[in-house]
Amino acid sequence: MSVATLDTRAGDAKAGRVFLIGAGPGDPDLLTVKALRLIQGAALVVYDRLVSKEIMELIPAAAERIYAGKALGNHHLVQDEINDLLLRLARSGRDVVRLKGGDPFVFGRGSEEALHLARHGIAFEVVPGISAAAGCSTYAGIPLTHRGLATGVRFVTGHLQGERSLDLDWTKLADPEVTLAVYMGLQALPEIAARLMAAGLPADTPAAAVESGTTPRQRRVVGTLATLLDLTAAAGLQAPTLLIIGRVVGLADELDWFGPS
Amino acid sequence: MSVATLDTRAGDAKAGRVFLIGAGPGDPDLLTVKALRLIQGAALVVYDRLVSKEIMELIPAAAERIYAGKALGNHHLVQDEINDLLLRLARSGRDVVRLKGGDPFVFGRGSEEALHLARHGIAFEVVPGISAAAGCSTYAGIPLTHRGLATGVRFVTGHLQGERSLDLDWTKLADPEVTLAVYMGLQALPEIAARLMAAGLPADTPAAAVESGTTPRQRRVVGTLATLLDLTAAAGLQAPTLLIIGRVVGLADELDWFGPS
Repeated sequence: MSVATLDTRAGDAKAGRVFLIGAGPGDPDLLTVKALRLIQGAALVVYDRLVSKEIMELIPAAAERIYAGKALGNHHLVQDEINDLLLRLARSGRDVVRLKGGDPFVFGRGSEEALHLARHGIAFEVVPGISAAAGCSTYAGIPLTHRGLATGVRFVTGHLQGERSLDLDWTKLADPEVTLAVYMGLQALPEIAARLMAAGLPADTPAAAVESGTTPRQRRVVGTLATLLDLTAAAGLQAPTLLIIGRVVGLADELDWFGPS
Repeated sequence: MSVATLDTRAGDAKAGRVFLIGAGPGDPDLLTVKALRLIQGAALVVYDRLVSKEIMELIPAAAERIYAGKALGNHHLVQDEINDLLLRLARSGRDVVRLKGGDPFVFGRGSEEALHLARHGIAFEVVPGISAAAGCSTYAGIPLTHRGLATGVRFVTGHLQGERSLDLDWTKLADPEVTLAVYMGLQALPEIAARLMAAGLPADTPAAAVESGTTPRQRRVVGTLATLLDLTAAAGLQAPTLLIIGRVVGLADELDWFGPS
């Protein structure tokens, strides 16, 4: 360990620390023990749009809450502003609970926040959370891997950040041996399905969409790569929705253990 | 929801239920709230080798413990035997806490156990856990995704199940835009590194190995695809070790927040 690393970790003695915490997919029962303890002890919380209301209710009434959420196409704060906000709050001497949906280091941009803090000498900790792919698939009765059905899993994001189409290597994604979990994939589902089929993934590959996974509001739609778009439209699914594409989705009916009703 | 599904979920009224629980990567602070509650209330626990000793200590002293772990090349129980054991225990009317390292639905074979139970009318629940890829990378200061460095992440297992070499599509795996997390990858590291480089992944791609991640015993080795094998050998790393390959590993020094010492 280098001296420079030690300095960064010790941080500015007068500054507060920042806890970058994954809130998981929604069910407060899926918070980690560490996340729950830090949330319940928080005096200052900076939170995202994707943190469920059940989890927001665990924050002490007296704690200050700052919304840093980003709605699709309506960014409340841009990432640079969030980075600077966290830095400013920590420099004021206060500990900050930075609460993000899912896992901060999986499409959470938590590492951009951590890097900004590290480069300015602010001490931080990262608490991983159950990522949407794991939580929503499990509660939808779909394993991400299964012997004979998937040798592994690939996480991608379907979030269109200003661009009009996704910049992904579709040939590499179109692999019948690998489960594909697409975060925020509903808006881009037409393109995703068309491109995967064009790249050779069979049209009858099982595919599912899970809206508000792990919460009492969870809705699950199961079909195929060819039918999922129509099915999600008919059901009126909305964000946040996770897509799962691959043979493992074929187990969804037998393994459907979670009844949110 | 079909009637058949309801029947399965209701299960055999006289039988116990099985809770397939992910124990996460090792740090008991990374257990989910639900996992901790079920563990602390358990009367009967069937556990794997990869459940950390700190987590085993949370099981009530009076609870019965059954070891179903699988050591490399020395299977204590084969999967069919574990499936039948869970079925037999549930049919005896007892609730079973089935405790697995990581996440039951990510290389945990939890879905094979769940499927066996479902097909025999035993009610079960699945509690996702922080998977090794998420926990070990976070505690090693490595994000799985990062804007400009990785558009996504791929999980594979390096576990050689009887075979003498890994059956993976190396051309698809050799993608500089995608982080690769290899579970149980130490034994197969020579093959993994050689094949990825042969498939075109640059030899200077950052790569890390994390032994006993998230525990007080965590050790981290950071190098490149070309150097990681020698570095892990020099350090004497042993299983369980997670490999992380990709540009995100280049952030490991700046984001090294966790000091297990």
